[in-house]
Amino acid sequence: MISKNELKYIKSLKLKKYRAREKKFLVEGIKNVSELLKSDFEVDYLICTKEYSHLFSQFHIVVSRDQLQAISTLKTNETCLAVAKIKSFRKETIDFSDHVIILDQVSDPGNLGTIVRSLDWFGFSQLILSPDSADFYNPKTIASTMGSFTRLKPFYVDLRSLLRDRNENIYGLTLDGENVSAVEINEPSIFVLGSESHGISKALGDLISKELTIPGPGRAESLNVAVATSILLYQLRLNKR
Amino acid sequence: MISKNELKYIKSLKLKKYRAREKKFLVEGIKNVSELLKSDFEVDYLICTKEYSHLFSQFHIVVSRDQLQAISTLKTNETCLAVAKIKSFRKETIDFSDHVIILDQVSDPGNLGTIVRSLDWFGFSQLILSPDSADFYNPKTIASTMGSFTRLKPFYVDLRSLLRDRNENIYGLTLDGENVSAVEINEPSIFVLGSESHGISKALGDLISKELTIPGPGRAESLNVAVATSILLYQLRLNKR
Repeated sequence: MISKNELKYIKSLKLKKYRAREKKFLVEGIKNVSELLKSDFEVDYLICTKEYSHLFSQFHIVVSRDQLQAISTLKTNETCLAVAKIKSFRKETIDFSDHVIILDQVSDPGNLGTIVRSLDWFGFSQLILSPDSADFYNPKTIASTMGSFTRLKPFYVDLRSLLRDRNENIYGLTLDGENVSAVEINEPSIFVLGSESHGISKALGDLISKELTIPGPGRAESLNVAVATSILLYQLRLNKR
Repeated sequence: MISKNELKYIKSLKLKKYRAREKKFLVEGIKNVSELLKSDFEVDYLICTKEYSHLFSQFHIVVSRDQLQAISTLKTNETCLAVAKIKSFRKETIDFSDHVIILDQVSDPGNLGTIVRSLDWFGFSQLILSPDSADFYNPKTIASTMGSFTRLKPFYVDLRSLLRDRNENIYGLTLDGENVSAVEINEPSIFVLGSESHGISKALGDLISKELTIPGPGRAESLNVAVATSILLYQLRLNKR
C-alpha cells in the first residue's frame, strides 16, 4: 500500500524545485527502471502494476494502473516507476584525459536525454553543462536516455570559469567553422555546443580556439542539437581509429 | 474574424483521420509558417496574434492569444498557425539517382521530423516510409522539421513490393553489421532503418544485401533512430568527397 501523502510527494518530483529540495528524481518505464536497479543509485521507491511485479525481486509496491498513471509523467505508463536519489559530482573530479563535451544553454530535456544516450554509446562517461541547461534529472531527460543516465556523470558548472583555466584546445560547433571531418584532432580536447536558437554564449566567444561545422549541402538552417552532438561524437571516434 | 465552426475544423486537423479526409494539415510557429509561405504549398488559413501580424503581407486572420492557443498543438504558441494542403507523391516518381533512405515502422513523429530536417541538411529531397510509420503531416513531425518539410517528398509505400524489384544494393542499419565507416559505398544505394524497438521487419529480411552498424564502444543498447539516421547521412556525404 502507498499513502496519499506518498503519492503526492512522488508526483511533486515532476518539478525541478522539489527535485532540488528532496534530492530525489523519477525513473519511469521498464527499460529505465531496470537499468536503475542494475546501477549503484539509491532507490527509495519501486512502484509497479500487478502485471509487471514478477519482474522485480526487490521490495516493491503494487498499485493499480490508474494510480501509476496518476504519478507518472509518461503519456502511458502501465509498467513501473521508481524514485531514486540524485547524485552530485564535484567539478574538481572532471576527467580531461578523454575529449570533454560541453553543452551551453541546451534547454530541451528530450534533446539532453538523447545526447546522454549517444555519449554512452560512443563510450563517454561525463557531460559538462551550463547551469541554465536542461535538468539532467528532468523526467523527460531520464526517459530519453534509455537507461544511459546511470552511466553518465553530469557536471553543472560556470563554463567561463572552467574554460578560462584550461590548456586544451577548445572547439566550438557552429554554422561557419572548418569542416569537422577535415580537422585533425588527436589530443584530448574540449568541444562546446550551444543552443539551436542562440548558439554559443558571447561570454565564451574569446575562449573558443577554433570553430567546427558539420557540412551540409542542403537547405536546412541547422541540425537538431542532439543530432549535431552525436555526429561530432561519431567523428571523434572515427579520428581515434 | 474566424467562426466557431472554422476553429473547430482547424482543431480537428490535429488528428490523422481528419487530415486524411480533408487533405489538410497544420503548420505552427514562426519558423515553420514562414518556410511554408516561401514554398509552393497551397495555404488555406494563416492565423496570427496581433503582435505578429506585421510579419505577414498575405491575407491573414488576427486572433487573440487564447484563441490561437486553443487551436494550436504546441505547448505555447503566441505567434501563428497555418492550414495548408497535403501534397501526395506517386511512387513511380521516386528518384533512385542518389542514395534512398527508407524508414520501416518508425513511429515517433518527433524523430521523423528530426530525420526530415537532417535529410534536408545533407541535401536529400525524398524519404520513403512504410505505411505504418509516423505521419509526415502530424503536427509534431512538422514542428520538429523546422521548415524542412517544405523541401522533402514523403512516399508511403509497401516496402516489400518496392524493394523486390530494385537492382541497387539494399543496406540495413542494424546492431551487428559491418562498420558503416569501413564499407565502400559508391553507387547510389538503398538504406533501410527500422524502429528502435523492433528493428527492420522480418518481411524485408531476405531483401537486405548487407547490414551496417554505427560502431560504439560504450554500453548504451542502441542509438536514437533520428541520431542513427543522421550519422548514416553524414557518413554517406563523407564517402562522396
